[in-house]
Amino acid sequence: MTSKASPRAQPEDLDCMRHSAAHVMAEAVQSLFPGARFGIGPTIEDGFYYDFELPRTLTPEDLSAIDARMRQSIAANSPFLREEVTKEAARQLFASQPYKLELIDELPDEKVTVYRQGSFTDLCRGPHVASTKGIGPFKLTSIAGAYWRGDEHRPMLQRIYGTAFATGKDLEEYLQKVEEAARRDHRRVGKDLDLFSLREEVGPGLVLWHPKGAIIRRVIEDFWKQEHMKRGYQLVYSPHIARLDLWKTSGHWEMYRESLYSPMDVEGQDYIVKPMNCPFHIFIFKSHLRSYRELPIRLAELGTVYRYERSGTLHGLARVRGFTQDDAHIFCRPDQLQNEIVAVLDLAKFMMKAFGFQDYEVLLSTRPEKYAGTLEIWAEATEALQKALERSSTPYQVDPGEGVFYGPKVDIKLKDALGRLWQGPTTQVDFNLPQRFDVNFIGEDSKEHRVVMVHRTVLGSMERFMATLVEHYGGAFPVWLAPVQAVIIPIADRHLDYVREVAGRLSATGLRVEVDDRTERMNLKIREAQVNKVPYMLVVGDKEQAAGTVSLRLRNNQDLGQKMVDEFLSMANAAIVARS
Amino acid sequence: MTSKASPRAQPEDLDCMRHSAAHVMAEAVQSLFPGARFGIGPTIEDGFYYDFELPRTLTPEDLSAIDARMRQSIAANSPFLREEVTKEAARQLFASQPYKLELIDELPDEKVTVYRQGSFTDLCRGPHVASTKGIGPFKLTSIAGAYWRGDEHRPMLQRIYGTAFATGKDLEEYLQKVEEAARRDHRRVGKDLDLFSLREEVGPGLVLWHPKGAIIRRVIEDFWKQEHMKRGYQLVYSPHIARLDLWKTSGHWEMYRESLYSPMDVEGQDYIVKPMNCPFHIFIFKSHLRSYRELPIRLAELGTVYRYERSGTLHGLARVRGFTQDDAHIFCRPDQLQNEIVAVLDLAKFMMKAFGFQDYEVLLSTRPEKYAGTLEIWAEATEALQKALERSSTPYQVDPGEGVFYGPKVDIKLKDALGRLWQGPTTQVDFNLPQRFDVNFIGEDSKEHRVVMVHRTVLGSMERFMATLVEHYGGAFPVWLAPVQAVIIPIADRHLDYVREVAGRLSATGLRVEVDDRTERMNLKIREAQVNKVPYMLVVGDKEQAAGTVSLRLRNNQDLGQKMVDEFLSMANAAIVARS
Repeated sequence: MTSKASPRAQPEDLDCMRHSAAHVMAEAVQSLFPGARFGIGPTIEDGFYYDFELPRTLTPEDLSAIDARMRQSIAANSPFLREEVTKEAARQLFASQPYKLELIDELPDEKVTVYRQGSFTDLCRGPHVASTKGIGPFKLTSIAGAYWRGDEHRPMLQRIYGTAFATGKDLEEYLQKVEEAARRDHRRVGKDLDLFSLREEVGPGLVLWHPKGAIIRRVIEDFWKQEHMKRGYQLVYSPHIARLDLWKTSGHWEMYRESLYSPMDVEGQDYIVKPMNCPFHIFIFKSHLRSYRELPIRLAELGTVYRYERSGTLHGLARVRGFTQDDAHIFCRPDQLQNEIVAVLDLAKFMMKAFGFQDYEVLLSTRPEKYAGTLEIWAEATEALQKALERSSTPYQVDPGEGVFYGPKVDIKLKDALGRLWQGPTTQVDFNLPQRFDVNFIGEDSKEHRVVMVHRTVLGSMERFMATLVEHYGGAFPVWLAPVQAVIIPIADRHLDYVREVAGRLSATGLRVEVDDRTERMNLKIREAQVNKVPYMLVVGDKEQAAGTVSLRLRNNQDLGQKMVDEFLSMANAAIVARS
Repeated sequence: MTSKASPRAQPEDLDCMRHSAAHVMAEAVQSLFPGARFGIGPTIEDGFYYDFELPRTLTPEDLSAIDARMRQSIAANSPFLREEVTKEAARQLFASQPYKLELIDELPDEKVTVYRQGSFTDLCRGPHVASTKGIGPFKLTSIAGAYWRGDEHRPMLQRIYGTAFATGKDLEEYLQKVEEAARRDHRRVGKDLDLFSLREEVGPGLVLWHPKGAIIRRVIEDFWKQEHMKRGYQLVYSPHIARLDLWKTSGHWEMYRESLYSPMDVEGQDYIVKPMNCPFHIFIFKSHLRSYRELPIRLAELGTVYRYERSGTLHGLARVRGFTQDDAHIFCRPDQLQNEIVAVLDLAKFMMKAFGFQDYEVLLSTRPEKYAGTLEIWAEATEALQKALERSSTPYQVDPGEGVFYGPKVDIKLKDALGRLWQGPTTQVDFNLPQRFDVNFIGEDSKEHRVVMVHRTVLGSMERFMATLVEHYGGAFPVWLAPVQAVIIPIADRHLDYVREVAGRLSATGLRVEVDDRTERMNLKIREAQVNKVPYMLVVGDKEQAAGTVSLRLRNNQDLGQKMVDEFLSMANAAIVARS
């Protein structure tokens, strides 16, 4: 007997089958809404969608009806038929479908392909399953508005999302994961735990950090600063606006104008809100002559930058218009580059571990077709990155030609508790800015030499990292990060004096403690503290007061019984020090 | 015998005499530069100046020549003669003096006064000394460029500054103070100690904080945050740009438009760089319903704001375009106001003491003619401020009618080591924004009530406070603020291992230590460390290495002899803890 691998669907197969499911969904919509106009219906990472222009807004009941029709079509097992037609024929076929006509106009070839199944025909490159029975267990998951072609000046269509899997078990697992992801959605948790808000009056994508979110951010920032100082970084501060000329010199005005804010006039000079911190750090570096002996110089800043993003693409803290980069620029000699990258990778790993990320993926992006600098310096820098990755035993993949035009880079993606990838530490070598800003040092030969510059962030931005953390921990932050670390709950008013004394003792050690002295029942207070993901609940009644103890309960409802106050304190402190 | 006060000049007398000196200076310039055109020649706080349009740029030698001519005029004892003339007559008198003609045109009355002494006649209201011998010991101090009427679109004139005193001793004392002030000028010290820079390329008034300045700022900020958290403030973060509508709602667009930056267009909406943090804190307060039991809520932020100032008025860190306020807003019930003000005053005093300011002046500014809110609420708030000042035993003066339109305020001015006053803590009650933004709480009666809002800064801004500190300490910061707290100086290379071990031990405790391992002579290294105002120099030679000690020297060159490393460490830590 030969062993046989269990029949798992290949990603290509899944994709093909989901694409077919999108067609079947469109067929169902067509039969339920005969006047429907069709946009596009592609597959996405975990499923598919289709965009429709419909006479009215869809309701959840519509989804059930569409779902039922789809099951009929699948049961009917209609074949998917591919046909090649001329553009002219296609135009006639889709004469009443303006979005399809727009797509046809843009296709490069004279022949286009259409696919038919049942009563539905779609403009489509394929491939598809042979017949509708090839579509596995599926589910329509949600409805959302979506501008035609993502352009807010074009009509708003209705998008139905769905997914399909090879087996019912796979589908079930996926749906559970989605549900868990929704429970952890940082926008929802952020609101429930009162961490931050975004308001139309202030402007989309501009974050207000509420006290509890700000505590987490401050703890992260303090930790970040201490760790950077320990590792030989020097902190600096730079302004949020500056003369536009800086960004003309840097090349950003030319390359990335669409993501810069519009200029402000100050005494006849154009100023903009900064999209990055680099030029400021360069000017600090250049504020006096630098000898080769002074290098490397590592300037770090929690610098808040502003970049324009279309409002449709904004997403909670994960995609915003103003964000604080945990930025640093390393100015070094070419012969120091490898060691610097090793140190950056070490710092990155230290930080990922500190914040509970065990798994990550590393990508080395190499020289693209258009590039600044010489072939020689690219080879040198790429080798430095490669050697550094090897020296620090970091498994990585090469992404050929995907470096930025100004230098090769290493990106690390964090895997969160649900296995999803988030953008993490990034390290970029830059040959462009040192040249554009003429950044040099005096070598041992007393001559000027160009520095090598490294841009790097470890957390990315405070905003996106906060989103990552919230979803990774589902809001149940480890003790060192929890905005409220302990809630003390007196059973009756007569315990209040003792409770306040305990609270005072705990606060004096720096623990973030609240007393819940409301006239509510103890069980409700415990439940609320658990909902608020407070790590420790200290319940105090007659027994505890008499014994000088607290009854300790965890947010997972585990009851640890009575503890002496000092015993609890060393337990909490151990958890804080271990960042667990 | 009656005792007689020593003959000290009254401020009015000094002013009059200095004004006369300005005329005598103008006379000297006229005789040396016959084609000179005259601007204005007023007195200022410590002297006088006169603005001239001259055929060439003045040199220091010119000042000597002008000085000599002035002494001749004074010796000649010419009387100052007042004359009243018609505007028409004045126009003829000053026919060749375009600046004077411009001034004449703007005078409201038909009659104007002129003063003559010697060969010089000036348009002037007076008064003057009777004759030139009434001018006391004087000195011409400096030359500077100054736009006519401070307007950068008008011609640049040459300004000569001078001063005069009743006695030679007074003049000498003053000049010494000026010299000391120049030595302490934060722009000079900031450059010498590499604390910060301002660059034309970045934009005037926009500060780059270099690593050493940033250390001081970070230490101040950390201290500030800790102290605020201890005192029940909650830290928040808010963005640096927001929709212009916020400032229309707040009334700032209407009232202070000239100091706001020009709007940026984002998807058809106007945005501006924020001039203040208040609206953001209001939105955080308003992010959910607030019960009377939750108040007071104290939201604090080191918030960087941007305000336009004419480039001619900018001055180092003391007057800038972007600055980080140590801002907080207290949202409270009217009955809580007094206690809150007492707490703010207590915090202000604590902070002033921490930073070495023993003397200060306190001003209570009351209701101006135009005001927001009712008479009753003004009376209540003013009484709350007054009672708070009395309860905290703070001597103060009332500045009647000088409150802001939105509420009364208490300003504290810090007296620095040279006796100069700097703007310090400020506390303003605000009746305007709670109304404009409809900021309420739910009272015990379950109805909505308007909150009282208090704006307060303790340090003012990190930039201006840094300027104050630098000039107060002359750059010789107390140990807890010093960017480098100790320099270790090995006498020879053979001491390097031991020196590095000592440095490691000191750094591990958080001390900011540098090792000066250059191949320079020990005395030069000590001198440089003293010039850099490093509090402790630890010299290490054979003797120290053998004994496990360091030889301790202070920046005032005091030699404290050999100390065990731990002994030095506890000494340094005691100084840090005492903030001395």
